[in-house]
Amino acid sequence: MTQTTLQDVAFPLGFSGAGAAAGIKKNGNPDVGLLRSEPPARAFGAFTLNAAAAAPVLYCREVLATGAPVSHVVVNSGCANAATGPRGYEDVLDTVAHLRAAEKVAGEVLVSSTGVIGEPLPMDKLRRGLDALAGEAAGLAPFHQAILTTDTFAKVAQRSLTLGGREARLGGASKGAGMICPNMATMLAYLTTDVDLPADYRPMFLDAVERTFNSISVDGDMSTNDTVLLLANGAAGVRYADLAADERSLFDAALLDLMRELAQAIVRDGEGATKLITVEVVGAVSEREAKAVGRAVSNSPLVKTAFFGGDANWGRVLAAAGYSGAQLTMEKLSLEFCGVKVFEAGMPLPRDEEDLAGRMKAREVSVRLDLGLGKAAWTYWTCDFSYDYVKINGSYRS
Amino acid sequence: MTQTTLQDVAFPLGFSGAGAAAGIKKNGNPDVGLLRSEPPARAFGAFTLNAAAAAPVLYCREVLATGAPVSHVVVNSGCANAATGPRGYEDVLDTVAHLRAAEKVAGEVLVSSTGVIGEPLPMDKLRRGLDALAGEAAGLAPFHQAILTTDTFAKVAQRSLTLGGREARLGGASKGAGMICPNMATMLAYLTTDVDLPADYRPMFLDAVERTFNSISVDGDMSTNDTVLLLANGAAGVRYADLAADERSLFDAALLDLMRELAQAIVRDGEGATKLITVEVVGAVSEREAKAVGRAVSNSPLVKTAFFGGDANWGRVLAAAGYSGAQLTMEKLSLEFCGVKVFEAGMPLPRDEEDLAGRMKAREVSVRLDLGLGKAAWTYWTCDFSYDYVKINGSYRS
Repeated sequence: MTQTTLQDVAFPLGFSGAGAAAGIKKNGNPDVGLLRSEPPARAFGAFTLNAAAAAPVLYCREVLATGAPVSHVVVNSGCANAATGPRGYEDVLDTVAHLRAAEKVAGEVLVSSTGVIGEPLPMDKLRRGLDALAGEAAGLAPFHQAILTTDTFAKVAQRSLTLGGREARLGGASKGAGMICPNMATMLAYLTTDVDLPADYRPMFLDAVERTFNSISVDGDMSTNDTVLLLANGAAGVRYADLAADERSLFDAALLDLMRELAQAIVRDGEGATKLITVEVVGAVSEREAKAVGRAVSNSPLVKTAFFGGDANWGRVLAAAGYSGAQLTMEKLSLEFCGVKVFEAGMPLPRDEEDLAGRMKAREVSVRLDLGLGKAAWTYWTCDFSYDYVKINGSYRS
Repeated sequence: MTQTTLQDVAFPLGFSGAGAAAGIKKNGNPDVGLLRSEPPARAFGAFTLNAAAAAPVLYCREVLATGAPVSHVVVNSGCANAATGPRGYEDVLDTVAHLRAAEKVAGEVLVSSTGVIGEPLPMDKLRRGLDALAGEAAGLAPFHQAILTTDTFAKVAQRSLTLGGREARLGGASKGAGMICPNMATMLAYLTTDVDLPADYRPMFLDAVERTFNSISVDGDMSTNDTVLLLANGAAGVRYADLAADERSLFDAALLDLMRELAQAIVRDGEGATKLITVEVVGAVSEREAKAVGRAVSNSPLVKTAFFGGDANWGRVLAAAGYSGAQLTMEKLSLEFCGVKVFEAGMPLPRDEEDLAGRMKAREVSVRLDLGLGKAAWTYWTCDFSYDYVKINGSYRS
């Protein structure tokens, strides 16, 4: 495992993070992470829409509904604490209680889990992990490493900008790999800022989630545990509510950009992925329709295997758009495949197959569909589907 | 290629079928099929809901809307004639005109295509194939072989039963392999019977399609060309409208059974498939909700790769049910995985992992979800997701 010098969630003032190996993961990697904010932060959350949402998701929703400031976030990997019934919920409460006994906790505690579904949390191990983190002993790992599962690299990002004459900072860490799809599938992301955000920033946050973490797909599976949290503790002495409109926009753009980087990192590191595929849909009658097309193309196993194999089978993109449920008029539709227009006005265009095949070999490729019906647009990111996806997921628990 | 002694669509009286190799497929296999009915038959059709539906689908819908009797069905594999615009539609009309010039055509002609999307039909080759078929030269292949693409075996079925004191027959052929999902993805199926069916049999036919060809999934991709046709020519001298209720039910059951056999054959032969997985959903508040759960589980790459790997990761079934959009109450839900109850009343049950792993090795496996909310049920069939799926689809056109 590589140690990174990026400070992840701990980059903004007042935040610290750490990870410990508690033995929940069989491979001995860090599996319990703790994020702290001093002072306690205003917290915003977006969660899976899965009806089988895991116990920690149910718990976080309740805590956030109170609006109470949050001082700690506990994350474990290796066990999702999902489909675990009342016992799973009690284990979340027990986790919080154990942390409160182990160290001073000034605000609320949020909890996330990721890993195998249907197994109870090994509480003895989790408690030992929390004890190690509370002790702040030497040898702890960064927070962003403790949240990983089948990820092959750590996903961290940070930004700084000057607002109201002071330096403000944003940091973040995410994990992904499998079960990633629009509306978040086992995706966890933690965002921090030392700017003081007002409670009514929530719609802005949710919109940014929609444009980033909800616009990526690895396999179309939505998990039981997806969580994106944003903690804003005001430690930089910058109040968003006091900023001029243009400075607010600067902050919004920095946050969106940070979230996009972390979301794209999840796709780049999709299980078995070899390519990042940008799926841009324009000319739709509504964002809803543009999203539907982008989602269908991004989730299509046939599109994804074609990219893995370097086969310029762009007809599969049209087939996926066709079953997306969006309104389509073939005669108005045009398609650019890896930068080459291959279909226009209902007809395939003459093309250089060799050139196309060469373009498909790039690590970053794109598909651009112009529906020709309106002005709405949306962009998704997905990855290709490889032998390794099957290998990883055929033996995930072993 | 193995020759089969089953007569496929030609089993009922008055039907004949044949296939020829016209060079549309690069591998030299039969790629143009012709099915004839004498007398011309009443025809029923169900087609893809894909908004990018192929030219032959658009054409067939128009012909069937007239209610005119059908005497011929032309099917080509190797090229889907989809995303081909006005030229594609003209090619369909040209195909029909060519057949009418080549032989006596007493009724309407239906046309289907399957294969690569976005390429024009090679009309010179198709015409040569029709000439060979019209000539009825020796050495022709069976109809059911001409319709195959990446299928590894032919899919034929037949039934006979006594109705009103006479023998009546049903026959059928299907093709599948990739792009198969609920609402039919490149799936073609041709059903024939020498019973005379009334025009108002249409709802019964569509219901049977819904329970069979629309309840299977290979990869969740819905194609531009899916077609199920039923031709009823009355050559057995049996009129459905004159039968007693119990004999009508016998016919309905035989047709449903034949269609189920052909639909399951498509899943068994799914691209790279090693297992047939039956996904039974019971206890739903409505068939619509039961179907939604069955579809989500059947399409989930994570569920499908787990079965390929023999990993009893049943939590993925619950996760898929959770994002299906159906109403779920975890405390009322129970799950049987390969015949073993693993989850009940919101909690995982103790289980013998070794026993489960052994059961997963079977060629036919099952998942049974009882939602515990109502009396509606639905059954889907899907297959596992293997290395070979990726291999086949990464290089389909090459």
